[in-house]
Amino acid sequence: MRAARYHDRRDIRIEDIDEPELKPGTVAIDVAWCGICGTDLHEYLEGPIFIPPAGHPHPISGESAPVTLGHEFSGTVSALGEGVSDLDVGESVVVEPYIIAADVDTSNDQSYQLSENMNFIGLGGGGGGLAEKIVVPRRWVHPVGDIPLDQAALIEPLSVGHHAFVRSGAGEGDVAIVGGAGPIGLLTSAVLKAEGLTVFISELSEARKEMARTTGVADEVLDPREGDVAERVRELTGGRGADVGFECSSVPVVLDMLFDAVRPGATIVNVSIWGHKPEVDMPTLVLKEIDLRGTIGYAGDHPATIELVRSGKLDLAPFITGRITLDTLISEGFEQLINNNEHHVKIIVDPKA
Amino acid sequence: MRAARYHDRRDIRIEDIDEPELKPGTVAIDVAWCGICGTDLHEYLEGPIFIPPAGHPHPISGESAPVTLGHEFSGTVSALGEGVSDLDVGESVVVEPYIIAADVDTSNDQSYQLSENMNFIGLGGGGGGLAEKIVVPRRWVHPVGDIPLDQAALIEPLSVGHHAFVRSGAGEGDVAIVGGAGPIGLLTSAVLKAEGLTVFISELSEARKEMARTTGVADEVLDPREGDVAERVRELTGGRGADVGFECSSVPVVLDMLFDAVRPGATIVNVSIWGHKPEVDMPTLVLKEIDLRGTIGYAGDHPATIELVRSGKLDLAPFITGRITLDTLISEGFEQLINNNEHHVKIIVDPKA
Repeated sequence: MRAARYHDRRDIRIEDIDEPELKPGTVAIDVAWCGICGTDLHEYLEGPIFIPPAGHPHPISGESAPVTLGHEFSGTVSALGEGVSDLDVGESVVVEPYIIAADVDTSNDQSYQLSENMNFIGLGGGGGGLAEKIVVPRRWVHPVGDIPLDQAALIEPLSVGHHAFVRSGAGEGDVAIVGGAGPIGLLTSAVLKAEGLTVFISELSEARKEMARTTGVADEVLDPREGDVAERVRELTGGRGADVGFECSSVPVVLDMLFDAVRPGATIVNVSIWGHKPEVDMPTLVLKEIDLRGTIGYAGDHPATIELVRSGKLDLAPFITGRITLDTLISEGFEQLINNNEHHVKIIVDPKA
Repeated sequence: MRAARYHDRRDIRIEDIDEPELKPGTVAIDVAWCGICGTDLHEYLEGPIFIPPAGHPHPISGESAPVTLGHEFSGTVSALGEGVSDLDVGESVVVEPYIIAADVDTSNDQSYQLSENMNFIGLGGGGGGLAEKIVVPRRWVHPVGDIPLDQAALIEPLSVGHHAFVRSGAGEGDVAIVGGAGPIGLLTSAVLKAEGLTVFISELSEARKEMARTTGVADEVLDPREGDVAERVRELTGGRGADVGFECSSVPVVLDMLFDAVRPGATIVNVSIWGHKPEVDMPTLVLKEIDLRGTIGYAGDHPATIELVRSGKLDLAPFITGRITLDTLISEGFEQLINNNEHHVKIIVDPKA
């Protein structure tokens, strides 16, 4: 079968590889669509990061580069391994793409994602969604009902937003300020809207501001060039400030803005990835008793995330901004996202075409 | 009466001033002992900070420098204002030294300390504990039962430690790593020990290490020069890491150590005051899903803090390292703490002597 394989930085190849083997307790999936993630871009431009370099096998998967890429995917069940009886062949599913040690409790206790040597299917081994077929342990397969398979490929990044929402402790009626309207900022905002929050997004880019408006995830889109964002959040909340902030930009001034824009006693969830140690406004963290919370991946979030979409509370269709095939993965996928990033939320790939 | 009055930076004078007036709803207190706080030192060396400068009256108290200093004090009730009937003349009390706007709900909801223009009695006006007498609103007076009045003067900084403990969400059986064994680090540790936690303290200073040992607040005192502190915390916890961290040093490398020493999913409470924006290890905050929580003052903490001491679970006597009189406040108090800081936890002042 065909698969996109990561060999090294700027060296991703479309290759013919053996089909994965169905083992007891696993599920074989024909991949329908697979999204390209910011993490994939980082691996391409600056990696290997999560990917175990050639000759350095991952302690759980035992694999190293070359590995098949792709961790945001949907598909249909093609076969069930011995002992798997609660899924049907032909059923639409997504995968929670974890590689986690066998001795870790992976029930929904919201901490298995923090276990030692955790990695992701499609990065750390275990196959990937940028291939025609994949076989994964039953534990990580989630049925999606009648959600269209193109939209279902976005369940994985949407689960990141859902996990950030859960980590925030916020709920219906709260006011959120989201820093950055990139893919994760938009999908986090979509979860917040669907959960009944009022959402303000801060964003500089015209294209992303437009995306925040057309997707309907923001009650207000605030451009820092048009006036102090924190001041405007206070105006919009009767002087009070937002109840919760979400950092989705990895930009220090955005983090500063969030510290300023939230009310005393608020929580700020960091949903972005930092490559360095930024200066953080600790004086304000102290005086306003802010909780600054990290979040990584998801844990037990997939069922609730799927239900948000399945029930119609959240429409993923507007976030798909490109559809390509595996042979144009680099030219129409990676390079498009690198050079024309602001005009895209999610490009999805059909690995069979 | 005699009082220590802050006029300006490095200008604190012992002066004769009028006795404060008893008004309805207030309580007159003969001050027994008043501690000198790190905040007082900051005002002396770098202020005015909390203190409203001459000509700039505080929006709630209406006062500006000169103001009477001292916010860590104990005393006996000398008179009760009209409408106050639930205290007795002669009763031992301490004061929760807040200046808070009249329209703020100051019931124990754990947020009144975050209200706009909050300030402290003994800094922002309202008299102070470095005077023979003080009159304060009934709301802020807490009876201390049979706690000796010298020890009772330490209830205020101990409440800071109690509030940090409450903010941490930690409890009996948890393992804490405390960064810094200055007065707040030691008193926070004392609360943690009394609440049934295992306490490790990281500290460089020989004198402070000795204090951590003699006061019995630490299960282990770890010196960063004798090996990586985070690594030793992991060894002491079977590889797991501490459940909770407390930053009590305002030193960036100590904050880094805490990020390393706590387990995934842990909380770090910042109990120190930062004069600048330090670099914070956001990559680790993300990957370990750490909660970094600010804490300022206390809110509803005094009754529980007093009970810890009254019940005998926590002995404040070892933390008193000096007793002086008002006329030697600068030479034996402030200058001693500035030049010989590491050898002191708390110097208390008798304003009547």
